[in-house]
Amino acid sequence: MRKHNFGAGPGILPESALHKTREAIIDFNGIGMGVMEISHRSKEFEAVLDRTKSLVKELLKVPDTHEVLFLQGGASQQFAMIPMNFLKTKAAYLDQGAWSSKAIKEAKNIGEVVVLASSKDKNYCYQPKGYSIPQDVDYLHICSNETIHGTQVKIFPSSPVPVICDMSSDIFSRPVDVSKFDVIYAGAQKNMGPSGVTLVIIRKDKAGTHGKKLPAIFDYKTHLDNNSLYNTPPVVSILVCMYTLEWLKEQGGVEGIEKINKQKADWFYGEVDSNPMFYGTADKEDRSPMNACFLLSDSSQDEEFLHATKKANIVGIKGHRSVGGFRASMYNALPFESVKMLVEVMKEFAKVKS
Amino acid sequence: MRKHNFGAGPGILPESALHKTREAIIDFNGIGMGVMEISHRSKEFEAVLDRTKSLVKELLKVPDTHEVLFLQGGASQQFAMIPMNFLKTKAAYLDQGAWSSKAIKEAKNIGEVVVLASSKDKNYCYQPKGYSIPQDVDYLHICSNETIHGTQVKIFPSSPVPVICDMSSDIFSRPVDVSKFDVIYAGAQKNMGPSGVTLVIIRKDKAGTHGKKLPAIFDYKTHLDNNSLYNTPPVVSILVCMYTLEWLKEQGGVEGIEKINKQKADWFYGEVDSNPMFYGTADKEDRSPMNACFLLSDSSQDEEFLHATKKANIVGIKGHRSVGGFRASMYNALPFESVKMLVEVMKEFAKVKS
Repeated sequence: MRKHNFGAGPGILPESALHKTREAIIDFNGIGMGVMEISHRSKEFEAVLDRTKSLVKELLKVPDTHEVLFLQGGASQQFAMIPMNFLKTKAAYLDQGAWSSKAIKEAKNIGEVVVLASSKDKNYCYQPKGYSIPQDVDYLHICSNETIHGTQVKIFPSSPVPVICDMSSDIFSRPVDVSKFDVIYAGAQKNMGPSGVTLVIIRKDKAGTHGKKLPAIFDYKTHLDNNSLYNTPPVVSILVCMYTLEWLKEQGGVEGIEKINKQKADWFYGEVDSNPMFYGTADKEDRSPMNACFLLSDSSQDEEFLHATKKANIVGIKGHRSVGGFRASMYNALPFESVKMLVEVMKEFAKVKS
Repeated sequence: MRKHNFGAGPGILPESALHKTREAIIDFNGIGMGVMEISHRSKEFEAVLDRTKSLVKELLKVPDTHEVLFLQGGASQQFAMIPMNFLKTKAAYLDQGAWSSKAIKEAKNIGEVVVLASSKDKNYCYQPKGYSIPQDVDYLHICSNETIHGTQVKIFPSSPVPVICDMSSDIFSRPVDVSKFDVIYAGAQKNMGPSGVTLVIIRKDKAGTHGKKLPAIFDYKTHLDNNSLYNTPPVVSILVCMYTLEWLKEQGGVEGIEKINKQKADWFYGEVDSNPMFYGTADKEDRSPMNACFLLSDSSQDEEFLHATKKANIVGIKGHRSVGGFRASMYNALPFESVKMLVEVMKEFAKVKS
């Protein structure tokens, strides 16, 4: 029996991707070796890399100006690589939550940072808006979806400077105009695959323009010039991404999954808003369909509620250890049935308690 | 039918590790989720991380002065992180082959480098010896086994300065006195597991002594303080390492596998030395039991020999694209039977051709 997995990441993956992966472990495509045993320069892995890249490009309509890279180290490594590669004099950041704060900290280590706006005053329960973007910065850094606080940027700003975006927790959940970004990056372990691989989509002509002496491995140009094969890539992790994106394509791509994600979010937030035992912590207009943060009106019942969800085979709904409460992460692969089950438990909990 | 996989890495893994991994993909330990779907902060993964660390410590007899870390980016990332963390004024390197050269290049980017000795004059067919180690350098960097050129350091030098060692291609193949090294690092994809995870064994009191403003993620102290959980680790890759090290323990640990590795190497090099059709490229005293580089006496027969090996289900024996010829990588998990098969093909080839 599969769990209803609301974990924030590494999170639930499509069952079809898991079944295909399982088959690849001992004998990949009938070649007499498991996928973890083949060279990253073999024709078998070349085909995996090519197809995964093509799927990313197709699903996100990546324009020819941009290239798709598969790196390692997650978003945390990108927090450092972005300013290493692009911060020459000054960069602008939005302070949208725990992850943005980490990105800002790393950038400050490297150069001057202007924080254009922050929602820290209300514990990051909303997305900063109405800020103006200076013309004299190297780039603007945004996080599209704050996993910990459950908010999402609904409309990306028109910017006079290049925009760089951390899309770790909502990539592939909705259409995005890639041409508007110089760099998009995302740890794979939410909507794309397992932990251990990082997606980077970069404007090709911007890679290597830093004019610095960077270690080769931290220079995007190195990876661009070597088709993500400068160092040995995480072979099996990329294969799982391929299978996950194949599944996504079958769901109608990002346009198709966006509709399903909206249905799941509407169902869940509808219950949060109508059930007096619960309330959502994020401002309604900024709510993330990926990560829904909520509290019990009476926090002394937290343990009891958690127990009720466990009995219903629900896992991963405890809030991030830094904020507490609850969080239902509803990534692409989470079935509607799981959301229904959680809502049923919430209804039943209210009935018993009232 | 499993292939005889002589690939240089990612290379062959123990069948038992593959079988266990296969079982973990859809339902890990009966928890209703696959291993790639669980949080890196779950008790399930905590147990995996703890056990993998313990196995590393037990198998390599890691003293209490040292800690075991699991990072990402492979040895290539360590080439940069080592000088970032330890090169203050000057560092000494040995130029032992293609990989050392890359490490030297990255170190030069960061500070002054003294190359103590080089075997480049003879295309790296031997290990430099008899060099003297200056007292005024921050560290000496060594590569214990040159995967591309097929040579191995048999006796590590007594050093007046800290020694840092890239053991990517022979870690866990023989006992090593960890206490003699400040840092040992290794990409996992040869003797430890799949690509996507990097083992670092570091003297705890040396981490964070750089006195620089390093990005948090490139500072060993960050990972030491966070038990390798500063960023999301490559969960499934670490699990495969655990299963691989469990298998190694069953083989009698590094002491047991060293004997088997010696048998395999003796069998193979014995044929190379007695069969007039072939010759080894590395100096006999420096030959690596892990990677055996060899050429045909008549290179016009290369294709024919390759064809003969293919017919015998042998794969991965082409030499590195930078040096050509042939290379038989005989990592821990390669069965003796595979070496026997290759030797039989070599014998048969000589018979047919003479």
